[in-house]
Amino acid sequence: MKVRENSYRSIWLAGDGRQVEIIDQTRLPHEFVIVSLVTLDDAAHAIREMLVRGAPLIGATAAYGMCLGLVQGASDADIDRIAETLVACRPTAVNLRWAVQRMSEALLSVQEDDRIKTAYAEAGKICEEDVAVNEAIGVHGLKLIQDAWDRKGGQGEVRILTHCNAGWLATVDWGTALAPVYKAHEAGIPLHVWVDETRPRSQGAALTAWELDAQGISHSLIVDNAGGHLMQRGQVDLCIVGTDRTTASGDVCNKIGTYLKALAARDNKVPFYVALPGSTIDWTLDDGFAIPIEERSQDEVLWVSGKTGDGRIEEVRIAPETTPAANPAFDVTPSSLVTGLITERGLCPASRQGLEGLFPERGQ
Amino acid sequence: MKVRENSYRSIWLAGDGRQVEIIDQTRLPHEFVIVSLVTLDDAAHAIREMLVRGAPLIGATAAYGMCLGLVQGASDADIDRIAETLVACRPTAVNLRWAVQRMSEALLSVQEDDRIKTAYAEAGKICEEDVAVNEAIGVHGLKLIQDAWDRKGGQGEVRILTHCNAGWLATVDWGTALAPVYKAHEAGIPLHVWVDETRPRSQGAALTAWELDAQGISHSLIVDNAGGHLMQRGQVDLCIVGTDRTTASGDVCNKIGTYLKALAARDNKVPFYVALPGSTIDWTLDDGFAIPIEERSQDEVLWVSGKTGDGRIEEVRIAPETTPAANPAFDVTPSSLVTGLITERGLCPASRQGLEGLFPERGQ
Repeated sequence: MKVRENSYRSIWLAGDGRQVEIIDQTRLPHEFVIVSLVTLDDAAHAIREMLVRGAPLIGATAAYGMCLGLVQGASDADIDRIAETLVACRPTAVNLRWAVQRMSEALLSVQEDDRIKTAYAEAGKICEEDVAVNEAIGVHGLKLIQDAWDRKGGQGEVRILTHCNAGWLATVDWGTALAPVYKAHEAGIPLHVWVDETRPRSQGAALTAWELDAQGISHSLIVDNAGGHLMQRGQVDLCIVGTDRTTASGDVCNKIGTYLKALAARDNKVPFYVALPGSTIDWTLDDGFAIPIEERSQDEVLWVSGKTGDGRIEEVRIAPETTPAANPAFDVTPSSLVTGLITERGLCPASRQGLEGLFPERGQ
Repeated sequence: MKVRENSYRSIWLAGDGRQVEIIDQTRLPHEFVIVSLVTLDDAAHAIREMLVRGAPLIGATAAYGMCLGLVQGASDADIDRIAETLVACRPTAVNLRWAVQRMSEALLSVQEDDRIKTAYAEAGKICEEDVAVNEAIGVHGLKLIQDAWDRKGGQGEVRILTHCNAGWLATVDWGTALAPVYKAHEAGIPLHVWVDETRPRSQGAALTAWELDAQGISHSLIVDNAGGHLMQRGQVDLCIVGTDRTTASGDVCNKIGTYLKALAARDNKVPFYVALPGSTIDWTLDDGFAIPIEERSQDEVLWVSGKTGDGRIEEVRIAPETTPAANPAFDVTPSSLVTGLITERGLCPASRQGLEGLFPERGQ
């Protein structure tokens, strides 16, 4: 996607073919800073401290993290150690596990001497596949926006509510929830996106708003409290969100607060769609409530970062100094609240039958 | 309530018997600053800029604002002008209108020379009545917390979720939603309060957390996104919120986001109570969706205020500079989502029948 007239992905190989470059997403929206990853520790740090975030981008970063780790040694034991280091960075992220496992299998199937070359090739493939998958999600999701536009008789604009950031910054390119938005914008459908702030880390305010702004798509930032009211007043045509993990039965584990918007959508008959690559489906799980929910630092709730009027980046505490906070990072939206899933293979109901229809090789 | 071992109300008459003193709530939780109101403009400014907020405290401040205004002239025309000035400060606040009307009636019924004395007496009465009303809400609401405690067999703690600030800072003393919490704490019931941050103005983080902290009541700050998840996981025993305006049919207009919590409470069979003084009921309205919703400045969404690590108060922008925001301040929770109302006259269902049962003089 474009940033100041240049095209970027969220992760790419540096000119030397070894180092990896990413956008430090903790610095957005106020600063656009590119960071080089040189070692396994750099990659682990980028994942753990959320310089990169979003299920697909975490997977891609972990894949390149394995490349960087092999420089210190490429034995079977090294591969296991590197894989463990990376998987430990974010416990809820199923894509992380998926990417690391795919890399490990590819590496273990070749001679030690060929492993670095194989790793870069495989990581590159993971990235290219992710771009293709997300673009396909965009093409399938575009139909839903086109339908909404047709239902409105081509009048006004299609108003889409999204939570957190499931845009191109969360993937290698295009995004998941925002891919249909970008495709609809390209197709000339007038849009307005309601951007949930998404406390505590405010990825909506910092990343989704920044993405939409950079592409010139009309949007408004709203607090996480406002979406229900907008739906009650008929100001939302559809909701599209991403997911960190989807069960085989269609339960959706996504950023905390997704569940509240899904409840409001049902109460107001607003379609609620979840966009996801097949790699985000956890075929071993049927019950979303069995997913362990990451409890993150209370500082994320108690402190807010931003830019002062005179241009300084500051962090400010919003609560009394003796007040503690609780910070569950995700919640589970049961499949019954999800109108449909948007995948790279098409649309389907949020159910085992729906998912197995699109991914028959993974059923059973 | 106590602040650093001293007892305070949220508004009181200064030693000279003329000036009025308030706590500047925009400075909390980081600074405890008392402000003197000397003129009508001071009172109007305090209401408009939310140095005071909360339906009952706005009413009390408007009552004293009329006292301060009379110093410039106490004719019938003066009374009308003063009343208009005050009512214009916050369009959604029904208590503001109520207090101003009550003051006007009391003033117009006496000679011009007696009006200043009458005004202070009436404003004092409004405050004393508010304290008595809120304490009665506390006593009635205590039963619900006691019931929850009994249902748990006296084990653990009663976990209460609240949204925004409906504590003593929102009233003259005790609060509405928090009055039952204070009564339960006095009664020795172990409590834990989940405090919704309540973006955009973060009254939960700034005021409710500060109040609970000052009274030594166990609490955790949570982002507005988290309450649904906590209810799904069985970590909330009941919700109690306040209201800015309640229709005769029991629809509740309260701080934006209340509706989302009420949806989650219903979905998880968590009792959802609304605490209110009778003066907050709008007997002329049946349909909550007819209530005009105040759209406040987008800066409230885009900028966050707090205290830096080294003790400076700063405001920071959380979104790109070109991103606009929408900021509806309230939403409507339909009566069907409300388990019951807690009033100074007791508990009742959220319905016309329920309210008329407690306030027969106001029904037809």
